[in-house]
Amino acid sequence: MRAAVLGAGNWGTAFAKVLTDAGTETVLWARRPELAEAVNQRHCNPDYLEGIELPGALRATTDPTEAMSGADLVVFAIPSQTLRENLGGWAGQLPPQASLVSLMKGIELGTVMRMSEVISQVAKALPERVAVVSGPNLAREIAMQQPTATTVACTDLARAESVQQACSTGYFRPYTNTDVIGTELGGAVKNVIALACGMAVGMGFGDNTVASLITRGLAETARLGSALGADPLTFAGLAGLGDLVATCASPLSRNRTFGHRLGRGETLEQAQQATHGQIAEGVKSCRSILDLADRHGVDVPIVREVSAVCAGESDPRTAVRALMSRSIKSE
Amino acid sequence: MRAAVLGAGNWGTAFAKVLTDAGTETVLWARRPELAEAVNQRHCNPDYLEGIELPGALRATTDPTEAMSGADLVVFAIPSQTLRENLGGWAGQLPPQASLVSLMKGIELGTVMRMSEVISQVAKALPERVAVVSGPNLAREIAMQQPTATTVACTDLARAESVQQACSTGYFRPYTNTDVIGTELGGAVKNVIALACGMAVGMGFGDNTVASLITRGLAETARLGSALGADPLTFAGLAGLGDLVATCASPLSRNRTFGHRLGRGETLEQAQQATHGQIAEGVKSCRSILDLADRHGVDVPIVREVSAVCAGESDPRTAVRALMSRSIKSE
Repeated sequence: MRAAVLGAGNWGTAFAKVLTDAGTETVLWARRPELAEAVNQRHCNPDYLEGIELPGALRATTDPTEAMSGADLVVFAIPSQTLRENLGGWAGQLPPQASLVSLMKGIELGTVMRMSEVISQVAKALPERVAVVSGPNLAREIAMQQPTATTVACTDLARAESVQQACSTGYFRPYTNTDVIGTELGGAVKNVIALACGMAVGMGFGDNTVASLITRGLAETARLGSALGADPLTFAGLAGLGDLVATCASPLSRNRTFGHRLGRGETLEQAQQATHGQIAEGVKSCRSILDLADRHGVDVPIVREVSAVCAGESDPRTAVRALMSRSIKSE
Repeated sequence: MRAAVLGAGNWGTAFAKVLTDAGTETVLWARRPELAEAVNQRHCNPDYLEGIELPGALRATTDPTEAMSGADLVVFAIPSQTLRENLGGWAGQLPPQASLVSLMKGIELGTVMRMSEVISQVAKALPERVAVVSGPNLAREIAMQQPTATTVACTDLARAESVQQACSTGYFRPYTNTDVIGTELGGAVKNVIALACGMAVGMGFGDNTVASLITRGLAETARLGSALGADPLTFAGLAGLGDLVATCASPLSRNRTFGHRLGRGETLEQAQQATHGQIAEGVKSCRSILDLADRHGVDVPIVREVSAVCAGESDPRTAVRALMSRSIKSE
């Protein structure tokens, strides 16, 4: 098996390590030459996974054509809102039989499409060629080889199984599922819930409040999922509850950390500066998730409040207060 | 409304404060005179809620008859395995119409009865007179007036509503439910799952592993609950997921802390000594929960592994390894 991983952020790099450790010949595409060189020469990615030693067999390149050449698996790990543009440039070079795997967690602004839908559309690939990987998967912990399970979802079960095989190691155990919608939605909405949890913690609230937000957050994700045709049971599993809890509980989560800064009183700009100019995924996705919910007539109070904060129309204090009184009514 | 709270540990004391803040005239029974005196004279409970100021209107006594005299609500907050014995001595003095409220989270050894069942049996009270309060309710955070929701469950909805009214404050919002079995079971099993999470953290595992244990733990709680006649939806709510997440995520949780010590290599005796001689509730309840599951033919792998550790038949390393490979198979 050969794999190309497109995107050398923390999750792309950690997943490239998993694939390599699983015996899959893997090439990592990085935009910046100095990153590709660090992977090839020093077996590390100091920008995103400081202190982690990458496998010697993992190669990196800045040439997407070289990365994808002969790949059975093409894995996408780039910012969700730039996927369409990037993929547009790459689509002609995708090996025609390759499985297309999304590690991305977001909903495209404007089109309100899930990442697998964008891949399918831009690559002109049937939906059954696209798989998604999602679960309680903090990249740094996986890079440290801490045991984790995950979900590999594809409407074509045989393809899900081939992806599963390509990334199964002693510390990373993928389980197959055919509910792509639920798996992807769990991953996208959890970033927004993590922002809300971070805001609450930043304001000084404790674990009771966070647990209430997680409980209500999973309920609103499941409501939206049901309206979109997902299997409600997916939300009780690794890609739903598992991913949500890992993200909301962990100080390693960028979304939670970003929310924490907002909760402490920083502006969106200040929070962005403090995180090396990166905007947390949930900040970018909350509006499109809200649009998606509105189109399906589903009530998503946490997503709505977070969206108002991220649009500068509300502040964390007002939002969390509204949520705590709100979540209480709806229980 | 008048209430007696029997038991001046951290949760009994915090709930007595909630009742008092909600305008309910409350008397707290403490076993030790020095504790009752601290509450009455200095408005504090230095042994269990250090640094928290209790309401001046809250009174304490060491005389259970005095505490229960004229009470509309008798609240039990004593160690679950001594409930039968304590209640045996008090049963004759219970006001005949009072609602009997359990704050306790455990399953009685030997009889495998839930706490509300023990209360009903020993007090010779119909089950519809017994309510349970359970949710993401870390006592210290509630005593600090951090916003929290909770579940008040009683098969008699009108009685649940009267308990709800007696303890509703701005920071503590109780929601009624008629599923006593699910509410109580969620509270009991979560202590055991928290022990497992603590062990994993103590062994150096991170948030991915903890999130996987929480996900699988809720699944096994729901399986057991379904076999006992609980409503599966209860486990997705505050008394299920909410309480589980708060307990497993918080360093304030005694069960998680106890598990953490075991995971770091301390013996049961060492962990007990370090926690002022207290044995965490989950250590005492795991065997009876396992017995309950066995009687109903329900598979509860996390409870089983934790029970083996607590019985000295296994060690945390073996248990967590077995769980991580196990949870993976069953997803």
